[in-house]
Amino acid sequence: MPKIITLTTDFGLRDPYAGMMKGAVLAVHESACIIDITHQIEPQAIDQASRIIHSAYACFPAGTVHVVVVDPGVGGHRRAVALESDGHIFLAPDNGVLTGILETGGTHNCVSIEEARYFRPRVSRTFHGRDIFAPVAGHVANGVPLRELGPPLSVQQLVRLDSPRAVIRNETEVAGRVTTVDRFGNLITDIKSDLLEEFLQRRSLDKSSLSIRIGACTVAGVRDCYQDVPAGQLLAIIGSSGYLEIALNRGNARGYCQAGPGDAVLVSVR
Amino acid sequence: MPKIITLTTDFGLRDPYAGMMKGAVLAVHESACIIDITHQIEPQAIDQASRIIHSAYACFPAGTVHVVVVDPGVGGHRRAVALESDGHIFLAPDNGVLTGILETGGTHNCVSIEEARYFRPRVSRTFHGRDIFAPVAGHVANGVPLRELGPPLSVQQLVRLDSPRAVIRNETEVAGRVTTVDRFGNLITDIKSDLLEEFLQRRSLDKSSLSIRIGACTVAGVRDCYQDVPAGQLLAIIGSSGYLEIALNRGNARGYCQAGPGDAVLVSVR
Amino acid sequence: MPKIITLTTDFGLRDPYAGMMKGAVLAVHESACIIDITHQIEPQAIDQASRIIHSAYACFPAGTVHVVVVDPGVGGHRRAVALESDGHIFLAPDNGVLTGILETGGTHNCVSIEEARYFRPRVSRTFHGRDIFAPVAGHVANGVPLRELGPPLSVQQLVRLDSPRAVIRNETEVAGRVTTVDRFGNLITDIKSDLLEEFLQRRSLDKSSLSIRIGACTVAGVRDCYQDVPAGQLLAIIGSSGYLEIALNRGNARGYCQAGPGDAVLVSVR
Repeated sequence: MPKIITLTTDFGLRDPYAGMMKGAVLAVHESACIIDITHQIEPQAIDQASRIIHSAYACFPAGTVHVVVVDPGVGGHRRAVALESDGHIFLAPDNGVLTGILETGGTHNCVSIEEARYFRPRVSRTFHGRDIFAPVAGHVANGVPLRELGPPLSVQQLVRLDSPRAVIRNETEVAGRVTTVDRFGNLITDIKSDLLEEFLQRRSLDKSSLSIRIGACTVAGVRDCYQDVPAGQLLAIIGSSGYLEIALNRGNARGYCQAGPGDAVLVSVR
Repeated sequence: MPKIITLTTDFGLRDPYAGMMKGAVLAVHESACIIDITHQIEPQAIDQASRIIHSAYACFPAGTVHVVVVDPGVGGHRRAVALESDGHIFLAPDNGVLTGILETGGTHNCVSIEEARYFRPRVSRTFHGRDIFAPVAGHVANGVPLRELGPPLSVQQLVRLDSPRAVIRNETEVAGRVTTVDRFGNLITDIKSDLLEEFLQRRSLDKSSLSIRIGACTVAGVRDCYQDVPAGQLLAIIGSSGYLEIALNRGNARGYCQAGPGDAVLVSVR
Repeated sequence: MPKIITLTTDFGLRDPYAGMMKGAVLAVHESACIIDITHQIEPQAIDQASRIIHSAYACFPAGTVHVVVVDPGVGGHRRAVALESDGHIFLAPDNGVLTGILETGGTHNCVSIEEARYFRPRVSRTFHGRDIFAPVAGHVANGVPLRELGPPLSVQQLVRLDSPRAVIRNETEVAGRVTTVDRFGNLITDIKSDLLEEFLQRRSLDKSSLSIRIGACTVAGVRDCYQDVPAGQLLAIIGSSGYLEIALNRGNARGYCQAGPGDAVLVSVR
C-alpha cells in the first residue's frame, strides 16, 4: 500500500517549489502517494492554512501524513513540529498553522522535529519545506515513529492563533464574520452549525426563523440546498464543512453582496 | 496495478475541494492513481466540461474511471449517473455534462447512482463530489459493477445539451463558432475535420483552397503545422483534437484577432 | 516500485493538455508516478523552463524521467531528444530547453528520438507532448534503453540558449540580472554563490561587506536567513537554489523595489 502524504502550502503552482518538495519526499519513500490539498494559500497566510487543513484532513484515511508549510519564520527560531491527532499526522512549523487541528480536541501526541538524520543532507535556511518537512514526511511514511524525530512537546507549548471567533453575543444575536470566499463566490463564515443550534434551542426556534445580515444584504432563513431558492436569489445554508455560508443559487454571492473576508455577519431572529 | 481515476471539475485549485475529493477516493481505494484533467472549468460551465472530458478521456487506458463534477443543481432533483462508454466509465451529475461522450456513439451502459452504501456516511447537500462521486469512483475502481450502484437507465433518458453545431450551411460555406481559447491564445472551433472533408469532397477541392473568416481576420488555406507560416503570422490548422483552429505562429491569435468563445467562424472557398 | 516521471510544460492547468499527457503516459506504463514540476511556464518561454528544470531535477531520486515540453517549434524541423545526465533522464524538444542541464557538466548520453514504434499510433503535428514525449517517457520508465529510441547525438550538436550571464566585471563589481520573481515577490538573480565567493576571495572580504544594488534600492550585506532583518526590511540572501536573491522579510520585494525579470543587479563592496 502506498502511504498517503498531503501538501498544503503557499508556494503556488508557477514556481517549482511544490514539485521540489515532492521530489524530496520521493527520494525517501519512492512509492508515496502525494496529494495536493492546495498550494494557493495567500503568501504567509497562516490563518487561512489553519482553516483549510482543518476542513480537509478528515476526508483522508487514518494514518495519512499532512505536511503544512506556510512558514514566514523559516530559518529563524520557530520550531518544527510533528503532531498526531485523530489518527492523522501533521508536520508543520510551530507558528499557529495547526490551530484548527489543536481545537478539534482528542489526545494529541507531539514532538519537536530536531533529528537532522531525517533531513536532506544540506539544509537551506529559506526552504525547510524541501529540506526538512518533505524528507521527514517520507521517513514517517516509511514507519519512523514520531518519538524518533525529536523530544516530546506538550501541546500547550504550541503556538496558537488568537483569531476572533463567532459568538452568541446576547439572546438576540450571533455575531461572526466571513473567513473565506470560495471560487464560486460563496461567503463562508466562522459561524458553526453547533453555535446556531445552541442559539435556536435557547429560544425554541428553528432555522427558518433566522435572519442573516451581511453588508447591505439580508437573507431570511437557513436553507437545506441551493435549489431551495430560485436561480439568482441569495440564500443562507450550512456548507459542506459545517459553517454558515451565504450563497447565490447559480451565481456569485461575493459580487452580489459586495462582501469579502473579514466582513461582519450577524444572525438574528426575524 | 493501481486503478486510474480522473477528475474534471469547476472547483479550482485554491480551495481544498479537489483535495477533499481525492481524500474521499483514497479512503475507499487506497492505491488509486488520481489524475487531474482540470479543475479550472468556469464555475457551472457544463458545456465546457462536456467538451473537455470528450477531448481528453481517450488518452487514458481503457477501464479508467472519469469523474466529472460541474454540478450547479447539486442537492436538488437532478440524477447522478454512471455511464460505460468506449471501455471507459464516467460518473457525473445528469445535467448534460456527458453530452460529448454520448455523441461518440457505441453502446452505452448506464445506471442511476442511488445505492447509499457506496456513499460517505453523511452526505451533504452541497458537495456530492466529495460525498457521492468520489467514494463511488473508489468502489468502482475496487471492482463494484455499475449495476450494483442503482437501477439501469436508458441513455435516451439522459440530459443532453442542445448547443449550436457547426453546419455546411449551403454549397459555399461552413458555419461554426469558437468554443474554446486555450492558454496559447489558439481559437478552437466546433468545426470538425470530418465536416470540412465532406464539404471539400462535394466540390472536389483540397484544404488549401479554403478561406477562413473570423471577425475582421481572414486566413487562406488550412496548414499542417504552425511552422508552415512565418512567426507572427495567422494560420488555420486541424488541432490535436480534430477541430479547426486559428492560431498565430509563435504568438497569440486571440489577441491578434480580438476574438473569443462564441464568435462566428465561416469557412468558404477562395 | 513505481517509476517517477516529472512534467514541466507551458500548458497551464485550465486546458486539458497536461491531463492528456498523463493519460498518454499511463496508457504505456500504468503504474507510473507522475509529478508536476510546473505547467505554468510562460507560453513558449524556453529560458524559463531551462532554469526551472535545472533547479528542480536534483530533488528527485536518480533514475527519474523528466519530460520538458515548451515547444514553439512543434511539428517543424526541430529534433526531439533524450538526454541522460547526472543519473536522470530528460526528454525534450531540442530547442535550448535543456541548456541548464547541459551546463551541469558530467558525461551526457544523448539520442535523437525517432523510433515511431514508441509514439502514439497517430502523431499530430501540434501536440508532441501527448503523442511523442509522453508515450516515450512511459516506455523509458518501462526499461527501454535510450539507444533504442533513435541514433546517438553528440551533446555538442544540441541547441543551447545564449543568455547573458552574471560576470565579475572588474575587481570592484559583479554584474547580473533578475531572472525570476517568485510567488513571494523574491527577486532571484543569475548570480551564483560560487561567483560571489570567487569575487570575495580575490579581495579577502566576507559577504557582509557587499553592497547590492537593484533599481533605486541598495542592500547592505548578504544575510543567512530572512529573520536576520526586521519584518518589512529588504535583504540579500543566497536562495535555496544557490543564487543571490533580494527579498523583503514578511513582504514582497518586487513591489518594494519595483523590479522584475531582466533588471540589472550590481554587487560591489561597501
